[in-house]
Amino acid sequence: MSYDYLSCPSCGEKVRSYSNPFPTVDVLIELPEGIVLIKRRNEPFGWALPGGFVDYGESLEAAAVRECEEETALKVTQMKLLGCYSDPARDTRFHAISTVYVVKCSGTPKAGDDAAEFGVFQLDNLPSPICFDHEKILSDYRERREAGTIW
Amino acid sequence: MSYDYLSCPSCGEKVRSYSNPFPTVDVLIELPEGIVLIKRRNEPFGWALPGGFVDYGESLEAAAVRECEEETALKVTQMKLLGCYSDPARDTRFHAISTVYVVKCSGTPKAGDDAAEFGVFQLDNLPSPICFDHEKILSDYRERREAGTIW
Repeated sequence: MSYDYLSCPSCGEKVRSYSNPFPTVDVLIELPEGIVLIKRRNEPFGWALPGGFVDYGESLEAAAVRECEEETALKVTQMKLLGCYSDPARDTRFHAISTVYVVKCSGTPKAGDDAAEFGVFQLDNLPSPICFDHEKILSDYRERREAGTIW
Repeated sequence: MSYDYLSCPSCGEKVRSYSNPFPTVDVLIELPEGIVLIKRRNEPFGWALPGGFVDYGESLEAAAVRECEEETALKVTQMKLLGCYSDPARDTRFHAISTVYVVKCSGTPKAGDDAAEFGVFQLDNLPSPICFDHEKILSDYRERREAGTIW
């Protein structure tokens, strides 16, 4: 168990809190035209898979469906686990563990709150820069897709 | 984002803290004689896969290796992701997300701190009761093993 210290807003005393890695989800959205990446509106700037924090009381699958809809307006119709990415250095801001799902969706994509814009890309023509370890995730996805072991 | 409230130890004021599900790992240890379950020393009592909390700054894989050694004295030599279990109701104490690895080990098993005893079981002769959703995890493992899609 690790600890973190918060400051009391009333007296300034240090208050000990448990510190755990943050659970997050990312979605690899398969559209007929390619996969969806969003251009981040906040630092670190660049392209990334849609995703975000998992709420307390929310399953990973529910978080993936919610984030997909919030960031691209697409509704998940099918999902498969791709893998878990938990290297503490994968995000320089804090330790985030990402569980990544490959999803199929219905609807028409449009950019949500966290995304300045989105794009649909072929795997052999990805934009740059790609944030976090999402290039590694995309490479793992490509390998699994070529091996036919996702769906 | 969800929040939680702690009490300041000095003045008693409420201090707002982010509340996230707790990342945990469990290991499904494959020995030649069967799989390893531990008899829990704390509530909920019963049999469970070895596992525990992931520390801040620790990868899921490192946590799985550490927990395996702490609870059974076995050293992980190979590991594969089985799946992620995140239903908020899977543990009645708090919302824990478990990432489960199937592992092969070297060494001789012996019970560690959190385990009153351990046992090695065949899948068709499991003990009872089995805690949390570990019966579901074992059933998923059995299915994947029979399909030959783990290693």
